[in-house]
Amino acid sequence: MKKHLILLAGLVLLPSLALAEEAPITEVAYILNSFSFLISGVLVMWMAAGFSMLEAGMVRSKNVATICLKNISLYSIAGILYYLIGYNLMYANVDGGFIGSLGLWGADDAAALGGDYSGEYATGSDWFFQMVFVATAASVVSGTIAERIKLWPFLGFVVVLTAVIYPIQGAWSWGGGWLDEMGFADYAGSTIVHSVGGWAALAGAMILGARTGKYGKDGRITPLPGSNMPLATLGTFILWMGWFGFNGGSVLALGSADAVIEMSNVYLNTNLAAAGGLVAAIIMLQLIYKKVDLSMALNGALAGLVSITAEPSTPSPGMAVIIGAIGGILVILAIPLLDKLKIDDVVGAISVHLVCGIWGTLAVPLTNSDASFVVQFIGIIAVGAFVLIASALVWLALKYSVGIRVSKEVEMNGCDMSELGMEAYPDFRGGSSAGSSGGSY
Amino acid sequence: MKKHLILLAGLVLLPSLALAEEAPITEVAYILNSFSFLISGVLVMWMAAGFSMLEAGMVRSKNVATICLKNISLYSIAGILYYLIGYNLMYANVDGGFIGSLGLWGADDAAALGGDYSGEYATGSDWFFQMVFVATAASVVSGTIAERIKLWPFLGFVVVLTAVIYPIQGAWSWGGGWLDEMGFADYAGSTIVHSVGGWAALAGAMILGARTGKYGKDGRITPLPGSNMPLATLGTFILWMGWFGFNGGSVLALGSADAVIEMSNVYLNTNLAAAGGLVAAIIMLQLIYKKVDLSMALNGALAGLVSITAEPSTPSPGMAVIIGAIGGILVILAIPLLDKLKIDDVVGAISVHLVCGIWGTLAVPLTNSDASFVVQFIGIIAVGAFVLIASALVWLALKYSVGIRVSKEVEMNGCDMSELGMEAYPDFRGGSSAGSSGGSY
Amino acid sequence: MKKHLILLAGLVLLPSLALAEEAPITEVAYILNSFSFLISGVLVMWMAAGFSMLEAGMVRSKNVATICLKNISLYSIAGILYYLIGYNLMYANVDGGFIGSLGLWGADDAAALGGDYSGEYATGSDWFFQMVFVATAASVVSGTIAERIKLWPFLGFVVVLTAVIYPIQGAWSWGGGWLDEMGFADYAGSTIVHSVGGWAALAGAMILGARTGKYGKDGRITPLPGSNMPLATLGTFILWMGWFGFNGGSVLALGSADAVIEMSNVYLNTNLAAAGGLVAAIIMLQLIYKKVDLSMALNGALAGLVSITAEPSTPSPGMAVIIGAIGGILVILAIPLLDKLKIDDVVGAISVHLVCGIWGTLAVPLTNSDASFVVQFIGIIAVGAFVLIASALVWLALKYSVGIRVSKEVEMNGCDMSELGMEAYPDFRGGSSAGSSGGSY
Repeated sequence: MKKHLILLAGLVLLPSLALAEEAPITEVAYILNSFSFLISGVLVMWMAAGFSMLEAGMVRSKNVATICLKNISLYSIAGILYYLIGYNLMYANVDGGFIGSLGLWGADDAAALGGDYSGEYATGSDWFFQMVFVATAASVVSGTIAERIKLWPFLGFVVVLTAVIYPIQGAWSWGGGWLDEMGFADYAGSTIVHSVGGWAALAGAMILGARTGKYGKDGRITPLPGSNMPLATLGTFILWMGWFGFNGGSVLALGSADAVIEMSNVYLNTNLAAAGGLVAAIIMLQLIYKKVDLSMALNGALAGLVSITAEPSTPSPGMAVIIGAIGGILVILAIPLLDKLKIDDVVGAISVHLVCGIWGTLAVPLTNSDASFVVQFIGIIAVGAFVLIASALVWLALKYSVGIRVSKEVEMNGCDMSELGMEAYPDFRGGSSAGSSGGSY
Repeated sequence: MKKHLILLAGLVLLPSLALAEEAPITEVAYILNSFSFLISGVLVMWMAAGFSMLEAGMVRSKNVATICLKNISLYSIAGILYYLIGYNLMYANVDGGFIGSLGLWGADDAAALGGDYSGEYATGSDWFFQMVFVATAASVVSGTIAERIKLWPFLGFVVVLTAVIYPIQGAWSWGGGWLDEMGFADYAGSTIVHSVGGWAALAGAMILGARTGKYGKDGRITPLPGSNMPLATLGTFILWMGWFGFNGGSVLALGSADAVIEMSNVYLNTNLAAAGGLVAAIIMLQLIYKKVDLSMALNGALAGLVSITAEPSTPSPGMAVIIGAIGGILVILAIPLLDKLKIDDVVGAISVHLVCGIWGTLAVPLTNSDASFVVQFIGIIAVGAFVLIASALVWLALKYSVGIRVSKEVEMNGCDMSELGMEAYPDFRGGSSAGSSGGSY
Repeated sequence: MKKHLILLAGLVLLPSLALAEEAPITEVAYILNSFSFLISGVLVMWMAAGFSMLEAGMVRSKNVATICLKNISLYSIAGILYYLIGYNLMYANVDGGFIGSLGLWGADDAAALGGDYSGEYATGSDWFFQMVFVATAASVVSGTIAERIKLWPFLGFVVVLTAVIYPIQGAWSWGGGWLDEMGFADYAGSTIVHSVGGWAALAGAMILGARTGKYGKDGRITPLPGSNMPLATLGTFILWMGWFGFNGGSVLALGSADAVIEMSNVYLNTNLAAAGGLVAAIIMLQLIYKKVDLSMALNGALAGLVSITAEPSTPSPGMAVIIGAIGGILVILAIPLLDKLKIDDVVGAISVHLVCGIWGTLAVPLTNSDASFVVQFIGIIAVGAFVLIASALVWLALKYSVGIRVSKEVEMNGCDMSELGMEAYPDFRGGSSAGSSGGSY
């Protein structure tokens, strides 16, 4: 129940020698814990903008408006569905089992309003923080399968992912289910958030197929370069910034010196892992390709961030750099490998979030002696199998009912004109696609 | 005086049974209250960037640099004028009346520096938070009347709006004037900030007239699509993020469990209302137009945000979704209606900020039993009449003195080349407008 | 040692009459001090994105991807090098001297974990906050020398700047060295951060030479306009936002009413100085050129920010406007002056960060009676001479070993295609440069 139970020891405000269990939670600790959730939650919400900009920069201009719409829509849907179903399925009455309860989430702060602060934080602040995490998992999916999936079936998948799939596997660990009881350690969600998004994206990419023209019959791989690199850079910076909330807020407390010391280490390790990922990636790119591709470098930074997410509190600064750097190297190797397997991942999200999510989860025991490789491995496999199968079933159900792939013509002209009836950049002619004029001046 | 007086009950740090009036404000509560103003204020300041990006994305490329300049200039002017005149006109000695005092604002923290924390927050933190609100009202105006208004007359209007018009109507409610005494309830400013911007924009749009070519003589409406949809999406995400500070900071306190519980509810309701607005808008768009226009979807999210702003603390999560969703529906209906009335609103700001500002203000009594529909209605009418008339007088004075509208030739070539002597995107030829080459390579 | 020692008087949480030296630091003060470093640090980290967007908007489209890569790389490198060498060189055992110690930085929070809060903040939170400052200094450099410097030699310079040059001069003042003992006052780094970046950029620009075609033989100056003005505007807004953390976090405390009052004044003065800089700049531009160039206006706002950074806590609001406005005027005068000297500064960073850094440092004694013009002058000269000479030596060493300037052909085709093998905007043909096609659709 990592995301819910906070060690009481971390909440004693008076520097006393009293046993942790005896120290009452003060009102100030209650306020600070809650405020940390709110501020951190805003930073994680901001990551939705980061994914939007990253993906908008990485797709071709004829699909930019569509990917923007998908991203802001999935963030909205995730919030509503997590309120309607997801939160309670993940956190209510899991009790070492596999699933929580059905039912609307509701705030319950009566105790604190009456002066009993043992709840440790405002329930709404916790809900807000948990909600932005489920949105992150959904954001991972949109990038991989961009440029050829229909709008509404995609949003339908988001409904199931955020209402059911993410919460059920989340119940196993953060909800206090069987994986938590086994000792599975995933501080801020390398597996529980990022790999989940990655597995769902992988299932989608395999069932949906590659973009037309990406993989030639002769094995030739055609690069389909992103249309706006500064936007992709901005998206990466936004994600980096938001990750301080993602990992830092996962301390789950701010009401004690212990908590703020831990949060400080989380912040600096998060930053150094991202730095390590980027630096390793650009060195690798220079060595292998003699050129440094910007989009790969950006993925290097993101790889570092995902890699440190499973345990940002225990590594030394140097170890954080190394964990991130290995992530950066992995992503440089994984992206061409996926291309060889003809799995078309538009933004490299599977390499970043799934591959490095696995790496980060496996790296936990390197610095945290409470974790074991065996349990980490079990957690990765269990979550992976569940999410991959469940996602595949949903994708297949959508495929054979409403259909998930746009027509060849729509793909050629771009989803923006065909699905939205608009262009992302109507004034900048000559790029996008033949025949996509429109706009009247 | 909602924006100034905080119930003492909300500031007791010790969980005592003492009557609220008797509990002294602790130094920690004083710090936390002030810090909430500062952090929330930064988020609201960030909304100025959101409006800039939204508007830069929604105008044609030939007017992008101009709209950027207007936005960063209006934010700057708002701050200086609110210091010179606006703040005291809004908050000093209103005493149930219609207007405050003239005079420079100055910090006064002598009591707190001497150990008396009954002021509850640093006066500078409050000024900072109030200042970013007046800038928001001004930001609403620039979008509506873009692409045809002259730079300096627009900035002249901003001077009057932020120094005089906004503060006077603000004095009526938040300043503790007659509307406050009557019981008018507007938590974070659906009326006091957003509708004010909307009324001022409406007056400007009517007096300025539509863009050339927008409305044909045969009743045909020509869409003039925005030039950069990912930028408009980014702007919407920035506004959404900033709104947590806008509404959350309007709790006006963080120094008690009560305050942070309220803030938590405000955060999650704000988020769910935006989500409801977007989801309702995209469903409406699909049903009515069979296509989901991205710019309309973005306005749906903003509509949800404006709608919840008058009362984000009392609704249940489900009610927040509904309030936002009704806002999203309203904006989808209002935008074409304004076009039928030939009121040319480039970004849809009147529909978002005025229409939904009214809706949000009227919705307060649905969840807050302290508010009454009659008083809410009186507040809407009084503020609307004052701002519409005062703005119209200023616009007319500007029109018949220095002129407010650029020439037809400037409008055709774009304000960027004519008024600024530059292009926003000099490297991307072929769009913008005929003859707007320039730049030398 | 301004950046490390905090007056104990500012940390008393109980409103007592006890002498400051006697009052113990409470756990709450410890938490708040640390949290201020973390949140402020995130805002300063965000400035790296601001510099990226500003510079990406100000360069021609053929060099946009490269400048993005340089910016995110320099931020990464700065963090790692500051951990490996820089921090201890700046802060460990300077003792009134000229330089600290060699050695890895490491967190040491044993005392606080044991209940002794006299350290006043978590050591990791301080490291994080200091680290983002060194990155800012490096960010200043990339803009000036864009569009003609090779990638790896630039990154090599960043290594030396962030590991050695910045920390050594920082040791003199913030590290408690000889300049600090003399009484040099630089609150948040007009000299120590911004001028340092400016001097390093100046040395680079002089040794590297101007861009081809910028300065004609007949003295004609060819404008090479930036390719994306809304991105430059966004960058400026990001920097403005981040500056609240830059200056506000430099209060170095949040654990007392005194500290939060000071922070409030810092926030509002920072905002008003930026506003003053922008308003002065646009008025100057209108008077001199009869047109308001957006990029110059943005530099006006940044000039105001740099100018107030040496002392944002003591000026009155009106004085802050004036200090910023003088900065705005200086930058409007300095940019063409540098062009006359044929010093090619792509984004105007020398004018903004060096010229206004000097102005801001000299302005400190106007409002802070503890500072003297003579000492301020000595500090400016000492830091300037050291950084200019040290930077020049590094640039020259790089020039005569690996070379620092791209070939004429690379410069014509753009660094993006030649150094990175990609385009920033592959879909938007017609601008960038001849022959830079690529991308396959």
